[in-house]
Amino acid sequence: MLTEKTVTQFLDELASNSPAPGGGSVAALAGAAGAALASMVCNLTIGKKKYVDVQAEMTAVLQQTEKLRKELALLIDKDTEAFNVVMAAFGLPKATEQEQAARTAAIQEATKSATLIPLQVMKTCEQSLHQALIVAQKGNKNSASDAGVAALMLQAGCAGAALNVRINLGSLQDAGFVQQVTEQYTAILQSALKLSREVLAAVDSTIGAN
Amino acid sequence: MLTEKTVTQFLDELASNSPAPGGGSVAALAGAAGAALASMVCNLTIGKKKYVDVQAEMTAVLQQTEKLRKELALLIDKDTEAFNVVMAAFGLPKATEQEQAARTAAIQEATKSATLIPLQVMKTCEQSLHQALIVAQKGNKNSASDAGVAALMLQAGCAGAALNVRINLGSLQDAGFVQQVTEQYTAILQSALKLSREVLAAVDSTIGAN
Repeated sequence: MLTEKTVTQFLDELASNSPAPGGGSVAALAGAAGAALASMVCNLTIGKKKYVDVQAEMTAVLQQTEKLRKELALLIDKDTEAFNVVMAAFGLPKATEQEQAARTAAIQEATKSATLIPLQVMKTCEQSLHQALIVAQKGNKNSASDAGVAALMLQAGCAGAALNVRINLGSLQDAGFVQQVTEQYTAILQSALKLSREVLAAVDSTIGAN
Repeated sequence: MLTEKTVTQFLDELASNSPAPGGGSVAALAGAAGAALASMVCNLTIGKKKYVDVQAEMTAVLQQTEKLRKELALLIDKDTEAFNVVMAAFGLPKATEQEQAARTAAIQEATKSATLIPLQVMKTCEQSLHQALIVAQKGNKNSASDAGVAALMLQAGCAGAALNVRINLGSLQDAGFVQQVTEQYTAILQSALKLSREVLAAVDSTIGAN
């Protein structure tokens, strides 16, 4: 599993001449790091006298961000696995017409699955951004920059996953699936962009103008 | 070292109630992942018949992105180390006036160092974006989404490091240092934003409108 490799090994594998892991897994990693930073700010807020009023809310947020972080961490490996299934389908025999038809069907099916993984990354990043906004508005102000980096990572993870959704949609023949996923990813991307801007505005007002 | 931990361990430490590692290390990690993705696209371009015309250029880009990736990976740990020095300075005794003065001076000095690390992350991300643009324009078109995710990570790394520069500048008394660093980080941030938009425009025209 990619997540059981060291950070150095992960970066080495990323840079290598193998197409997986690639941008899809990195998008999920960015999301997981963003959710983890949101959790950190919760943990640095809970139990502090100054923030006693938001203790219950931060505890609830932390439960969510930890759940979302673990889901995003799993998606790091799921994205690479889904890509490998697509590659395996491309490797199927294509000598006869029957083989060609079976190969095309397998490629289409695998590409659909490989599209739904980054779509899930997008959804999970967007859900995490809702939590990051609460963290930026009500969490420990000493950690304002961490809340901001959380939002930047979640937004980049969402936008990066969107590129992976799009490049896969480009090779799919099922027009209904393409339209449905296009509507979904467009709406998620818009919402994520709006939320990340709101988080960064809250962070800006805390850090002040330097 | 953080980079010798597994990805899972790194995310667990990030989410914990310790302020380091935090957003500064994550910004460096995002930059390192972005540079690694740019390297990957170079590696998937070099040696391909279709891209024989850009072989020499991609080899030169790869040399740069690998150098920048290694620098960014080192900055993951350097940021946390610099933060820990600041925390140690806050822990110095403050019983006498002399101790108070020494403590304040140590905090100021450590905070300056902790400001220059994310500034270096910003510079290295911006330099990597120059390379990512060549990769997006001339690299293997099958990896267009990877070039796009590279740019998103480098841009988020740069913007995230900028938040860390700013939060540190806010507690510094040396007006000359503050002004000099403010001018530098503002210029780098503008350049990085422009470059990442250019990369994403190139990626968009490759992936097409979906």
